[in-house]
Amino acid sequence: MKEKLIVDMDGVLSDIYQQLINYQYKENGILANLKDLEGKTEREVFDNFDNYIHSEGFFVNSNPIKGSVEVLQTLNEKYNLFIVSAAMQFPKSLTEKVQWLKMYFPFITWKQIVLCGTKDIIKGDIMIDDHFMNLDKFSGKTILYTQPHNIKINDHKHQRVNNWFEIKDLVD
Amino acid sequence: MKEKLIVDMDGVLSDIYQQLINYQYKENGILANLKDLEGKTEREVFDNFDNYIHSEGFFVNSNPIKGSVEVLQTLNEKYNLFIVSAAMQFPKSLTEKVQWLKMYFPFITWKQIVLCGTKDIIKGDIMIDDHFMNLDKFSGKTILYTQPHNIKINDHKHQRVNNWFEIKDLVD
Repeated sequence: MKEKLIVDMDGVLSDIYQQLINYQYKENGILANLKDLEGKTEREVFDNFDNYIHSEGFFVNSNPIKGSVEVLQTLNEKYNLFIVSAAMQFPKSLTEKVQWLKMYFPFITWKQIVLCGTKDIIKGDIMIDDHFMNLDKFSGKTILYTQPHNIKINDHKHQRVNNWFEIKDLVD
Repeated sequence: MKEKLIVDMDGVLSDIYQQLINYQYKENGILANLKDLEGKTEREVFDNFDNYIHSEGFFVNSNPIKGSVEVLQTLNEKYNLFIVSAAMQFPKSLTEKVQWLKMYFPFITWKQIVLCGTKDIIKGDIMIDDHFMNLDKFSGKTILYTQPHNIKINDHKHQRVNNWFEIKDLVD
């Protein structure tokens, strides 16, 4: 039986940081630098964070993170893959997230998608996520995807990866 | 720590059978009898099942099953409650299901809702569902909610309940 691989969306498959930077730049001409965002939550950095993520089109118009499509297609053969996104706080995102996956990851079927509020009730063998709160409660192997908000935290409970090519080396 | 209670939507909280009966009656005047549906899947009984469930408004306009609101409100205090619905096959249902819960079960927050394709990756302590395929893969205590499609199957792995008042007696 294939192992269950649980993959997060925002900040792991979809480039939410770039999308936030674009939205802020369009709104007020401030071009945030990824270096300046290190160690801070998105809400601390982007004044209108809540407006951005609640606006129509925010999720569906984001770009996939480099390498995610090719590597995930390979992993989809080897693992029992599930995409699990904590989307329930943002009602507009529900259909956008499904549309977005269909667009960039057409090999992922509806059976493999989970939209939830918290990930406390998700079980599996491996979880890839950029948030400690999700990884800390998972009982299987945990992989932390580097994003500015988590980059300054040294935590040896989870294996850290910096990009999708490192994920490939680790789990393929 | 409170036990995690996983509750299904269609056929457990929402009266999907009555909704299917209404849709068929409106369409062609055939009034199905619940007795005639016993031992058959909804798809076997309702010729236009797929049209009905894919149509806008099907889920949001269904009624809650008798007793579900009052009993679930009590259980929400005692348990760490999650509503888990296999909704991903029906993209229109995603926002409708969230709206519907907000309307009839306002005490349930966004953190407690999970919309998925299959329930294979759901963990918890107790699951209430009307489908064997969901209960069979669950590692905790399982409660089968009686519906016409499951009524003829004798299965002693799961505790059978016939209404929400029996659920209250069992788990409250």
